[in-house]
Amino acid sequence: MSQDNWNRWGSEDERGALNHIDAASVKRAAALATTGQVISLTQPLSARTPFPPHRAGVQHFMGRSGGDYAAGARRPGGFQFAEDTLLMPAHIGTHIDALCHAWYDDQLYNGFPGAGTRGTTGASRCGIDKMGPIVTRGILLDIAAVRGSPLPDGTAIGVADLEQASRAAGGEPAKGDVVLIRTGWMERQSDAVRFDHEPGIDLAAALWLAEREVAVVGADNFAVEVLPFATGTVFPVHQRLIRDFGIPLLEGLVLQSLAETGRHTFLFAASPLPVVGGTGSPISPIAIL
Amino acid sequence: MSQDNWNRWGSEDERGALNHIDAASVKRAAALATTGQVISLTQPLSARTPFPPHRAGVQHFMGRSGGDYAAGARRPGGFQFAEDTLLMPAHIGTHIDALCHAWYDDQLYNGFPGAGTRGTTGASRCGIDKMGPIVTRGILLDIAAVRGSPLPDGTAIGVADLEQASRAAGGEPAKGDVVLIRTGWMERQSDAVRFDHEPGIDLAAALWLAEREVAVVGADNFAVEVLPFATGTVFPVHQRLIRDFGIPLLEGLVLQSLAETGRHTFLFAASPLPVVGGTGSPISPIAIL
Amino acid sequence: MSQDNWNRWGSEDERGALNHIDAASVKRAAALATTGQVISLTQPLSARTPFPPHRAGVQHFMGRSGGDYAAGARRPGGFQFAEDTLLMPAHIGTHIDALCHAWYDDQLYNGFPGAGTRGTTGASRCGIDKMGPIVTRGILLDIAAVRGSPLPDGTAIGVADLEQASRAAGGEPAKGDVVLIRTGWMERQSDAVRFDHEPGIDLAAALWLAEREVAVVGADNFAVEVLPFATGTVFPVHQRLIRDFGIPLLEGLVLQSLAETGRHTFLFAASPLPVVGGTGSPISPIAIL
Amino acid sequence: MSQDNWNRWGSEDERGALNHIDAASVKRAAALATTGQVISLTQPLSARTPFPPHRAGVQHFMGRSGGDYAAGARRPGGFQFAEDTLLMPAHIGTHIDALCHAWYDDQLYNGFPGAGTRGTTGASRCGIDKMGPIVTRGILLDIAAVRGSPLPDGTAIGVADLEQASRAAGGEPAKGDVVLIRTGWMERQSDAVRFDHEPGIDLAAALWLAEREVAVVGADNFAVEVLPFATGTVFPVHQRLIRDFGIPLLEGLVLQSLAETGRHTFLFAASPLPVVGGTGSPISPIAIL
Repeated sequence: MSQDNWNRWGSEDERGALNHIDAASVKRAAALATTGQVISLTQPLSARTPFPPHRAGVQHFMGRSGGDYAAGARRPGGFQFAEDTLLMPAHIGTHIDALCHAWYDDQLYNGFPGAGTRGTTGASRCGIDKMGPIVTRGILLDIAAVRGSPLPDGTAIGVADLEQASRAAGGEPAKGDVVLIRTGWMERQSDAVRFDHEPGIDLAAALWLAEREVAVVGADNFAVEVLPFATGTVFPVHQRLIRDFGIPLLEGLVLQSLAETGRHTFLFAASPLPVVGGTGSPISPIAIL
Repeated sequence: MSQDNWNRWGSEDERGALNHIDAASVKRAAALATTGQVISLTQPLSARTPFPPHRAGVQHFMGRSGGDYAAGARRPGGFQFAEDTLLMPAHIGTHIDALCHAWYDDQLYNGFPGAGTRGTTGASRCGIDKMGPIVTRGILLDIAAVRGSPLPDGTAIGVADLEQASRAAGGEPAKGDVVLIRTGWMERQSDAVRFDHEPGIDLAAALWLAEREVAVVGADNFAVEVLPFATGTVFPVHQRLIRDFGIPLLEGLVLQSLAETGRHTFLFAASPLPVVGGTGSPISPIAIL
Repeated sequence: MSQDNWNRWGSEDERGALNHIDAASVKRAAALATTGQVISLTQPLSARTPFPPHRAGVQHFMGRSGGDYAAGARRPGGFQFAEDTLLMPAHIGTHIDALCHAWYDDQLYNGFPGAGTRGTTGASRCGIDKMGPIVTRGILLDIAAVRGSPLPDGTAIGVADLEQASRAAGGEPAKGDVVLIRTGWMERQSDAVRFDHEPGIDLAAALWLAEREVAVVGADNFAVEVLPFATGTVFPVHQRLIRDFGIPLLEGLVLQSLAETGRHTFLFAASPLPVVGGTGSPISPIAIL
Repeated sequence: MSQDNWNRWGSEDERGALNHIDAASVKRAAALATTGQVISLTQPLSARTPFPPHRAGVQHFMGRSGGDYAAGARRPGGFQFAEDTLLMPAHIGTHIDALCHAWYDDQLYNGFPGAGTRGTTGASRCGIDKMGPIVTRGILLDIAAVRGSPLPDGTAIGVADLEQASRAAGGEPAKGDVVLIRTGWMERQSDAVRFDHEPGIDLAAALWLAEREVAVVGADNFAVEVLPFATGTVFPVHQRLIRDFGIPLLEGLVLQSLAETGRHTFLFAASPLPVVGGTGSPISPIAIL
């Protein structure tokens, strides 16, 4: 049982490694916006957005639409409008895991009780509403480029991969960075996405990132870490990064366009929906080059 | 029937005034990140988030939670997790209107047919998925400060107010800016929020902003424009800005903390959820000072 | 701690007092269908259906509709159709409580553990899917008629009321009956329904019914029992009838039309939606006279 | 363009062939309850309930559960409870089609305009809330028994099949009957249910039933009629029975237990949820023998 970053920012802290980001990080990151190019790192959300078997997909219900007017709806003052309702699991498409999302030994990050997250109230501690905006340097570790092609399912990305990709990126991830790991998984997907195997980082790679005091670890796959897991473990990277280090995971990123620019560091900006007591949020991260 | 910005960016354009933002805008805006302070402009989302009578509120359904483990759920490999599902209208809390949200004479922005938005498919044109990230200069026009206190419901903010607030901001809004108008409405709300009146801009003020070629108009109220409407009109600002000028509206902003910094211009970053065919999206905008 | 009907029908029983109904009950009840008149005892379901503050209301999302065709949707082979999706709490409108809905001392009816009902799985025991169809004699105890008018909120219906109404009905409730208690509450409601007080049965009345071995207790209010509760108790009738006697409660009935017929006994038929692990179900009971 | 039963029960009628049922039908049907056996004809509802690709499945969200108490929730006055919320398409599992569900030439049953069903309001005419309870004679036409085994997909059930099954049932369907057709499809299903082919009645068989003035046609498949359709037609039985004759279709029935009793006629009772403007309803029909 490890508690690496517990109490590092006080016994009441619910933001974990995001505390590695300070005003200086933000200013340094803003200076990376040298070309003014803006890239979305986000999957579209629709009934076609893939989801694992234990979850359900996005449902998009139209209320008022153009069809209503075609069918004779009134338009007082000429005004016409359309609107809709969205149903989705928090962990679908491009999304970020709150620190209440994963734990072990009945304790969340910073020692908060797991039982503080209930069906009636959601998470009393470490909910996604405690996270706030994320603005800092982003660094792309393009493992697919380093290895020469998208990684097959089940491929573990180890420390050596991260080191090699860091060299290609001009340096290792630094304190307060958002690390974006490109496996090529997202680009390989077609209709029948499977959620029981994927390329991703192994535990040693995760700890290497945590040692560098990064703020967030993201990837272009569905769970950041390699599946199947190492024998005898279940989501070991989730357990250690989220619960022990307080590092949120950013999943389902679209990194191909970013990779094609050749840029490895940039201003990263993203902000989850502050769902009170939520375990995560769909998110639309931006790379500003 | 006006079509101010139709065809300005080609007959297939679905992004409207966001085209006013170019790489130079982004670079200039990034240079405003001088202190590294980051401020969220977003309301929390929960069953308590106010909504108008013709809509329903947020529902947050927990699936797996700490309660399941307390009740004996298995934890293979020690792993414990919590997750949830979110139901919400697109136009709740802090949200942005897609260009398919409002129109008149059966035509959307750029002449696309209103009937292209249907119950089965959502918007075939000008959906929120066409919008992309918004990174540019933000400018706060603090009408509540100029007038000395939060504006009462029904107060029209006119051109003179915008001019006076612009002077306080060090200059008028410029091409490609996101304009954030603080009425003080948000800070005045308590339990029973009403959606039939609010302070907001009048049509002349809206056109003054459109002339300055701003990219987005936002406010800390629920509909940007003043309610009740001028006699004989219904959502005139929505009709003209969204449909004729292609200017998205950003509603339900939280601007008090930003106002308290004394800063009026800053790097603004926000990105809607790219819901395919959606009429809008909850959004978590960021001001970077 | 009482366990009145526990083990009465075996340690694995999940149907409780519904076991009081046998084939003979059904045949006797069918013989009551003497006029062939059929009456629905059900409230309409819509966004207007009242709900208490801790729940949300019905949402009815249209998918395909006539508006789509008016807007140009294709009609292969001439075929046109409309369809929709329904969101609703299980305990809204006219509904029946499953035996897993209410308990105390961490044990459900028949001693099943309360912790067997979880966020991920629903109720492993006594879910609404275990209930099956209910066909038996219905008996109307028309307290509003006996007292001369709809009962004011907070009025406790006691044993004397049930006895008096039974005389009017031609006899007391018998083993296997569904008892329907008319308070007049439903007919008194207008727009702003309150859920913190209502006329209803007191605990003594509930026990009087349980002694008569009825199968179900229903009423035309929202919770069968009187609110506010007797001092120091919270839902005492739910606790005793559901958990100790295994008697489901049928709430939100519409009894006015039935009462107006002058008939007090009839063939009763209703069947909940068999939602696996559900705690209740909206239901459309029928009286056949 | 046929309008077989239009205006038969007046220009405002929205109940169609259910008008074939009168008090005498009910009394005759009640006399069939000779053994007192009660059989549910309903599928369980859960995330596993099959649904076609253009719809989504059931979602069952627990709110309060036993897990909350295990995790420390308060229990004022000892009271503990569980409750939940249900999301489902109207046409899932065992369900009945409202007369607004299917039409052609822009007109519903009885000439009501298709455009009267909109995204904002649902069906203004022929919604499921207009249907009311269904109590009448049920007659089982057991085609699977007549043919000796469950019918393969794509098998058309014709008039000769209905005639042969009627002989086995002791006579043809009569005015006001609910006809239940057993194809054996339901019993053949395992995990991957397909919705593009099934055994079912052809158009001639449907018209044969309509001539007999039955009130409802039901089957143990997903759409009553055979798929693939006859060349050049799309849901021809839906078009003719629902729109021209006003006969609701009852789909997804579970008929095996009923068939095993050897009984072919019985008292049938079912009542849809009266969703205002709904196009159909999950339903739990009962056979009383």
